[in-house]
Amino acid sequence: MASAYSHLTERFSTIAQIDHALTMLQWDQLVMMPPGGQESRAKSIAELSVMKHKLLADEHTGELISTAHNQNLDNASRRSLKEMERSYQQAACLPEALVKAQSLAGSRCENQWRTQRTNNDWEGFLKNFKEVVSLAREEAQARQASLENCPTPYDAMLDLYCTGDSSKEIGEIFNQLTTHLPDLIAQVLEKQQPCQISLDGTYPTSKQLQLNKRLMEILQFDFTKGRLDVSLHPFSTGCRGDQRITTRFRQSEFLEALMATAHETGHASYENGLPSQWEGLPIGRARNMCLHESQSLLFEKHIFLSNAFFSHFVTEMHNYLTETQCYTAQQIYTEAIRVQPSYIRVEADEVTYPLHVALRFEIEKDLINGSIPPQDIPELWDQKMNGYLGLTTKDDHVRGCMQDIHWTDGTFGYFPSYTMGAVNAAQIFAALRRTVPDVEENLAHGNITALSQWLHNNIWSKGSSLDSQDIIKLATGEKSSHHYFMRHLQKRYLGQDPGE
Amino acid sequence: MASAYSHLTERFSTIAQIDHALTMLQWDQLVMMPPGGQESRAKSIAELSVMKHKLLADEHTGELISTAHNQNLDNASRRSLKEMERSYQQAACLPEALVKAQSLAGSRCENQWRTQRTNNDWEGFLKNFKEVVSLAREEAQARQASLENCPTPYDAMLDLYCTGDSSKEIGEIFNQLTTHLPDLIAQVLEKQQPCQISLDGTYPTSKQLQLNKRLMEILQFDFTKGRLDVSLHPFSTGCRGDQRITTRFRQSEFLEALMATAHETGHASYENGLPSQWEGLPIGRARNMCLHESQSLLFEKHIFLSNAFFSHFVTEMHNYLTETQCYTAQQIYTEAIRVQPSYIRVEADEVTYPLHVALRFEIEKDLINGSIPPQDIPELWDQKMNGYLGLTTKDDHVRGCMQDIHWTDGTFGYFPSYTMGAVNAAQIFAALRRTVPDVEENLAHGNITALSQWLHNNIWSKGSSLDSQDIIKLATGEKSSHHYFMRHLQKRYLGQDPGE
Repeated sequence: MASAYSHLTERFSTIAQIDHALTMLQWDQLVMMPPGGQESRAKSIAELSVMKHKLLADEHTGELISTAHNQNLDNASRRSLKEMERSYQQAACLPEALVKAQSLAGSRCENQWRTQRTNNDWEGFLKNFKEVVSLAREEAQARQASLENCPTPYDAMLDLYCTGDSSKEIGEIFNQLTTHLPDLIAQVLEKQQPCQISLDGTYPTSKQLQLNKRLMEILQFDFTKGRLDVSLHPFSTGCRGDQRITTRFRQSEFLEALMATAHETGHASYENGLPSQWEGLPIGRARNMCLHESQSLLFEKHIFLSNAFFSHFVTEMHNYLTETQCYTAQQIYTEAIRVQPSYIRVEADEVTYPLHVALRFEIEKDLINGSIPPQDIPELWDQKMNGYLGLTTKDDHVRGCMQDIHWTDGTFGYFPSYTMGAVNAAQIFAALRRTVPDVEENLAHGNITALSQWLHNNIWSKGSSLDSQDIIKLATGEKSSHHYFMRHLQKRYLGQDPGE
Repeated sequence: MASAYSHLTERFSTIAQIDHALTMLQWDQLVMMPPGGQESRAKSIAELSVMKHKLLADEHTGELISTAHNQNLDNASRRSLKEMERSYQQAACLPEALVKAQSLAGSRCENQWRTQRTNNDWEGFLKNFKEVVSLAREEAQARQASLENCPTPYDAMLDLYCTGDSSKEIGEIFNQLTTHLPDLIAQVLEKQQPCQISLDGTYPTSKQLQLNKRLMEILQFDFTKGRLDVSLHPFSTGCRGDQRITTRFRQSEFLEALMATAHETGHASYENGLPSQWEGLPIGRARNMCLHESQSLLFEKHIFLSNAFFSHFVTEMHNYLTETQCYTAQQIYTEAIRVQPSYIRVEADEVTYPLHVALRFEIEKDLINGSIPPQDIPELWDQKMNGYLGLTTKDDHVRGCMQDIHWTDGTFGYFPSYTMGAVNAAQIFAALRRTVPDVEENLAHGNITALSQWLHNNIWSKGSSLDSQDIIKLATGEKSSHHYFMRHLQKRYLGQDPGE
């Protein structure tokens, strides 16, 4: 008779097959589907999501997990079982009525937000958003109740994306960043040479596409195991052996697409490097979004935007986009890393970006834990933007608290992963530099073989076999710390090398 | 309490959502997927197929159907129930062990065929193929047993693709064609002017793609409801509002892609014109492959390859492919409709094509009904090719009985739909000409609006609400007959107009 654990692996494999279909249907929807397919696609995705949820969250899965706990399992299987249980609990802990109510309220709020944002209509938005927040609080409390030792409702939301990192630990890192970054930014703005050239021009998108594919090749993306396409917002998805990444092109500018491509190639490299022996099981998945984002930012900020790699890559740029030949590598690089406090998170440089995230983290934490009401957000936003970046968003909701899509459908707890990713990326890259020989020289030749191998061994191949902070500690010698990120910024933007 | 019939509509809607996913995963596999995705994709498709089969074929579906038969249903629902029952029986009538054995034997035979064909290795192929035939006979007998009044095992296979057309009726049409076509071909070859120009050249595929999209526009393909892509073999798939068709390009030639595009646009038009009120239910599907192929051939042979439309379209050809400007419309048209007996079915012109199909129909009928053994095929093939087209395939299996993929995985009963499609297309187009005013003039202006509307009203919007021959009788006044096809050939290729 097959054991409960082997029944579970079968069940999770089935779930993975449904997930494969969902992944590809969603990719197609954003990249290939003509508008006429919307209705059929929405129905099919909804149906498969229900099937997946039923398989994952039904009582029988819970019973199999209980039984498997009493089996004699090796360490890897015991760990695998733990990750199955996490998936099960995350799916099973919410009452069906709440999930439905959230889906309805979230869709309504998100849909109306698209026009309300254009009209700077905070009051209109607030009407829908109050319901979204109220349901999200219910969700957070239900999730908290299902977890052992979960200190706050917000921590239960964090567990979905920043699995293993608590709001206390994340909060300490954000405290350091909000304390030190404003001063650093002032120094950078002081030191940074004023903008002397404009890279604006006309860069044919067909040539840009070729250049972006060339960048992916250099970053060791295997085109027999994935594709690059174009979508409204760049993203990365897919499955083992078939990573689908997207970028977007503007004719007037070429850096944005390249940064997005480098970023998504990092995500794809992590996914394609996950442990094959656990394919289809929760233990085989990427650990959390703080690590996922660390890999995309490592590719974008530490490889592509390193002076060494970038200078090398400009030769390719000059070949594919002959229009860029009038600029030197150093001129283009200076613009690529220019720092400028601004209102919009997704357009922010790496120095100011964490402050955008910090204010969202602080607000959503208090919102979900119930210590502030939704109507207080605009004022808090304005105060924090003033304090962190010296910009006011008073009465300007478009460039203030209505700019992001995340909260509109109740996605709270996701924002911190962007900056935890940046923090982890700097720390991991510092450790990599300490152990891999000739990193600088290899980057200057566009050779990332040894570097990829190190990331594969230390991060990608771990999947979810360890907790996130254990992966980071094993790879870097300590748990997530703001120090490496701050040093990285000081070195790149102030030319200071405080050492490690 | 919801009725059995409404439970059934829910269940079939769920099945349609899984079908949507399967359709798109299969399209992606042939059009977009990098090779590295093969393994995951195969697993996901297999899992969803099993889910679909379970929902369709399980006992509960059968019970609901029995109960619904005793409900008080309106005529449309009664018809819908009948089509549900047909789907259920087709899925439920085969023992699971047989389906598995067929899947294994079919995959093995098809895979090895790919190399055996290259090596002209009939003996090697026969080893696997005997098993495929033996299992297909079992399948046919099981299907026959599940049907009322099904005269032969082969008729039960026909029921899958040529639903509503019996082997006796199809056989009578093929008898007429094999009796009269060889003589007609001789006359055409006598009359046809010898090839004086070669259209071989260099035609950039990017320009060909634009020209093919232009053709689709003229044929009223709505690009907000579908796409054109490139694949190894042209095909058409998709769902309401999202038709995915493909073609293929050769740089040296431009007619093949255009004919494939016109053909697949016909398939897509039928699908997009199916009745929306029955979406997701068997009654809302295309009637059968003999009608489906009639619509693709109507678009390819009767619209695109009509002298009137083609002459008009050559202006577009000259615009997009400037290389074609050295040929007159009539020169290109003459080559587009050239008749030449040849070995390979898929390369055959419309005059010789039915004979390729007739010989396959005759052989597969006897094979499935058990009156000939698989090892007799090469000799029979050679005899029939000699009789019909004056060509020998003795010892030449590559250009003989090993050329097609259909039989290798046990798909018997499909071939006749190609020629029943041609027969129906001619008959439907003749009826259309009798009732729609100014068809010739509209074709000469590339205007197919009235023509499409007629097809929509008379064919597409019927879905499966009527039997195939009832749809044809209502649209044309009589059941499928070879007369209109023969007259079409006589008119186009001999310049004779025997009238109707």
